[in-house]
Amino acid sequence: MSQAKPPFALPMRTLRTVGELRAALAPDRRAGLKIGLVPTMGALHEGHLSLIRRARRQCDRVVVSLFVNPAQFNERSDLEHYPRREQHDTDLAATAGADLLFVPSVEEVYPAGFATSVEVLGVTERLEGAARGSAHFRGVTTVVTKLLGMALPDIAYFGQKDAQQVVVIRHLVRDLNLPVQIETCPTVREPDGLAMSSRNALLTPDERARALALYGALSAAAEHAWSGERSAEALLDTARAAMAPFAVEPEYLALVDPDTLEPVTRLDESALLAVAAHVGAIRLIDNITIHATVPSSRGESHRSTNATGLDGNCGVTDPQIPTSHILRQAISSKEPATCSA
Amino acid sequence: MSQAKPPFALPMRTLRTVGELRAALAPDRRAGLKIGLVPTMGALHEGHLSLIRRARRQCDRVVVSLFVNPAQFNERSDLEHYPRREQHDTDLAATAGADLLFVPSVEEVYPAGFATSVEVLGVTERLEGAARGSAHFRGVTTVVTKLLGMALPDIAYFGQKDAQQVVVIRHLVRDLNLPVQIETCPTVREPDGLAMSSRNALLTPDERARALALYGALSAAAEHAWSGERSAEALLDTARAAMAPFAVEPEYLALVDPDTLEPVTRLDESALLAVAAHVGAIRLIDNITIHATVPSSRGESHRSTNATGLDGNCGVTDPQIPTSHILRQAISSKEPATCSA
Repeated sequence: MSQAKPPFALPMRTLRTVGELRAALAPDRRAGLKIGLVPTMGALHEGHLSLIRRARRQCDRVVVSLFVNPAQFNERSDLEHYPRREQHDTDLAATAGADLLFVPSVEEVYPAGFATSVEVLGVTERLEGAARGSAHFRGVTTVVTKLLGMALPDIAYFGQKDAQQVVVIRHLVRDLNLPVQIETCPTVREPDGLAMSSRNALLTPDERARALALYGALSAAAEHAWSGERSAEALLDTARAAMAPFAVEPEYLALVDPDTLEPVTRLDESALLAVAAHVGAIRLIDNITIHATVPSSRGESHRSTNATGLDGNCGVTDPQIPTSHILRQAISSKEPATCSA
Repeated sequence: MSQAKPPFALPMRTLRTVGELRAALAPDRRAGLKIGLVPTMGALHEGHLSLIRRARRQCDRVVVSLFVNPAQFNERSDLEHYPRREQHDTDLAATAGADLLFVPSVEEVYPAGFATSVEVLGVTERLEGAARGSAHFRGVTTVVTKLLGMALPDIAYFGQKDAQQVVVIRHLVRDLNLPVQIETCPTVREPDGLAMSSRNALLTPDERARALALYGALSAAAEHAWSGERSAEALLDTARAAMAPFAVEPEYLALVDPDTLEPVTRLDESALLAVAAHVGAIRLIDNITIHATVPSSRGESHRSTNATGLDGNCGVTDPQIPTSHILRQAISSKEPATCSA
């Protein structure tokens, strides 16, 4: 549960222009209050709420932005069908502890004559960048740079579900000397292991069942690694085999260095296992950090300084997923201690 | 003359890392002091000093950065020969009123793994962008975004000598919602009209004389406009004819809209006349805003909200330049009232 807002807190306000947002935050900034920003595309779920609650605990003012950014969609139908639920989001954000909900229009973010882009090379060219094209991350880094400029937060919060996005944004912030601290929260999952995603709402019941292929692949490979397997090819074979029963083909399935996102051939300390797949018409992604050794206890703290934190999980209960007790425990042990307390 | 620093001011300090700069400015920012940044590539001249003096008048803390940015040089020899005079710059910046001189190394600005760029399309594709290639302005916009992130100034100062750069940076700041105000100061000229430039020091005596071709072209066209000529082609012919006696060929010579930088065919209210030319091995640029009507008095205030301010001038005395009294007065009337007082 989120920490209650301070007793003097006002009800959450919804703002729609950059001018309103800056005016609302200016007195807070002058007063030296710490400002947190949770950038979202709306259709909020528990993953977003864990970010908002974390911001609530760490900051004096919590801004949640809600903007479906056309620039980062590489498919028109994905953009058109992306769920939009402002009233639902308003209620959830307020309950989770947001002070300001920033809901700009497309014209407010990209006014006539807009002609600027921010691009990170290298880490954007793999995984999602390779699959979706360079415009996707260019859209992400451009809008994140803009949102940081609009709100000037002390801390901005991102979910580990979009692991590559976190790597890219850390690179962006470092390269452009943007004055912000980036915090990540573990992926929040449904009880059966499916990573929470706004796009899950678009799945048919049959697709919802088959969507478990992604987490099934990740957890099977993690278990294999913990049994001693070090070969990336063997681990990927295990992951692919776990997807087959769901009749889901990975668009990519890769074991990569958590910082450079370059493929690894052997698992040494830890590596990021990332997967993308279409389930019906819906494209889903998921990832997990695989460790060569089984994390031993709840004592291992959440990593907030890089993108390699072990995914959190709210509990894996679906017997279809070949997830051992130790895997479930190791994964789920992260979540309550960090982002959902 | 610059306004004296406040009596409590400390001697200017030279800082070399982003960490030092941020640490030095953090208490000032917390105290609500207004911070001004004058980004330069060093080899300071009166043009830079007018920016520093202006910052001194408008801000509580004045930061001057001194960084020869390799990313914006499209010719290796230009980068290699660009004048570097840190001790000279230190003395001048301190005298003009700087509090902090920020002199980062190339490695500090572009550490290993740097992979990000900021690009403004459209206005970067003309004039200098067309002549020098897209990497030039990409280098400018990337380093300016970084410098703004490093220093987080309230106001950043740029010279109208680089008119297109000012247009590009205003576009950048607007498009990325960077929280800074951009101020421009008029071009400062030598007594004979040559626009001050760090590269002037590289001219031989013969080239120095021929370099007057640029200002000669601009002032001849301005006079022609004030005599009633409205045709861009006629004005450009006049400008080209004025360059011929100096045996200097323009790389470009263009009458453009001051905001979009697109060529105009007729002079309506005002337009930017911009020229670039090699004089020997040295590439020089200059520009002037041409008005359809002769500016009437000193009362016309300096424009700080767009790039169309009339160039200032410290006095045009060289009889070789076909500059009428009214032109000299109109141009020079801007300078003392705005940036050099």
